[in-house]
Amino acid sequence: MAYELYYWDGIQGRGEFVRLALEQAGADYMDVARTGSGTQKMMEYMQGRHGNLKTPFAPPFLRDGDLVISHVANILHHLAPKLDLVPLDEGSRIFANGLQLTITDFLMEVHDTHHPISTADYYEDQRKEAKDRSRAFLKNRVPKFIGYFNRLIEANSSHGGYILGEKLTYVDLSLFQVAEGLAYAFPRAMDDFEKNYPHVAALKEDVRALPRIAAYLKSDRRLAFNESGIFRRYPELDQDPA
Amino acid sequence: MAYELYYWDGIQGRGEFVRLALEQAGADYMDVARTGSGTQKMMEYMQGRHGNLKTPFAPPFLRDGDLVISHVANILHHLAPKLDLVPLDEGSRIFANGLQLTITDFLMEVHDTHHPISTADYYEDQRKEAKDRSRAFLKNRVPKFIGYFNRLIEANSSHGGYILGEKLTYVDLSLFQVAEGLAYAFPRAMDDFEKNYPHVAALKEDVRALPRIAAYLKSDRRLAFNESGIFRRYPELDQDPA
Repeated sequence: MAYELYYWDGIQGRGEFVRLALEQAGADYMDVARTGSGTQKMMEYMQGRHGNLKTPFAPPFLRDGDLVISHVANILHHLAPKLDLVPLDEGSRIFANGLQLTITDFLMEVHDTHHPISTADYYEDQRKEAKDRSRAFLKNRVPKFIGYFNRLIEANSSHGGYILGEKLTYVDLSLFQVAEGLAYAFPRAMDDFEKNYPHVAALKEDVRALPRIAAYLKSDRRLAFNESGIFRRYPELDQDPA
Repeated sequence: MAYELYYWDGIQGRGEFVRLALEQAGADYMDVARTGSGTQKMMEYMQGRHGNLKTPFAPPFLRDGDLVISHVANILHHLAPKLDLVPLDEGSRIFANGLQLTITDFLMEVHDTHHPISTADYYEDQRKEAKDRSRAFLKNRVPKFIGYFNRLIEANSSHGGYILGEKLTYVDLSLFQVAEGLAYAFPRAMDDFEKNYPHVAALKEDVRALPRIAAYLKSDRRLAFNESGIFRRYPELDQDPA
């Protein structure tokens, strides 16, 4: 049976981290909210009207047979062994999950660059605070998080350019998406990304060139970045490299 | 061998969610940074000087034999089956993990009530923004998150007062800590907590009365809430119930 991915139509958002794994594995899946009455079906799940008490708090969530799995890291931890996107030993799976959760934390910070005060209010109503938060994010948080991943790739004794082990994992795919998103949202500030984070930059290009990923990025299944997603391009939040 | 928990000394913080599970299970563990040269040992791990390439991004992390596990949800997902704090079927473990990740997201929002602009700056330098963020948090986010958990307990067909299944799980312990933290940080705004979230309020009292938890809360292993942790009491961020 095909996997059913439930996520808001119209944005890459958090759903994209799941899509990339499914696409790279060539898995059979349905992006439910992008089908006919899919958004309605998703909302019925959220309202607990699906006869399953395990109601998710928010999209994305994945149906895999009788299982309903919410949260990106949870979904990927479940899928990765089936999709051959993580080494199967316990230590690697746990390490990969910790790395994905680090990416989860980072994404929350990315989101808050444009919504530092309230997700219920418009960006335009918190633009001043968004500028301050973005400045701190670019100065302190990007180096802390992306520098960490860069060091891990460099220290990986397999020297294959991946974050852990010898082969591509779902964490590499997610890091590709993070690097793409930063380049979209902050093109000026990321001008020296390759200089500062050469291993992450190289990984990004390697992932982009994977045949299945390359085909996906050219397809209409790949939505464009836009100003409803996590990574938003507001020129006034961008700045010259630190 | 005893579990080794690594977390900053002096605060409950994210480490507390792990401590509560270990305490309730009566597990043998060491709170490393609260021992002699423990903080130094923790920092050496963070700097990758421990001969293990799986360097954590940040505390808390747990050593279980050769495994090094970072991130609260990852630690608890690993520990819970061993500590009898989650049903062993795949669906329950996945659901519990999704719930714990929802709590993780909520904790990030709690933290940002006092640090909405930059974690590198003092609270006092972002007090105006913290007031705005706290107002939105209390108005929109507490009802959304705590209301969700309240509905889950109510809808749990076991009617035992727990979030999932018939028995106490680690998610219940974490929700106890969240409810305690909210009451500490926002005593005025939480004045009608019991009225608004009766099932979460009842769970909080049930957990507090568990013999091992009660003993822990009275011990010097339980640190007090303070203004260096996630939940901070700044009266100017509190307000009357909405």
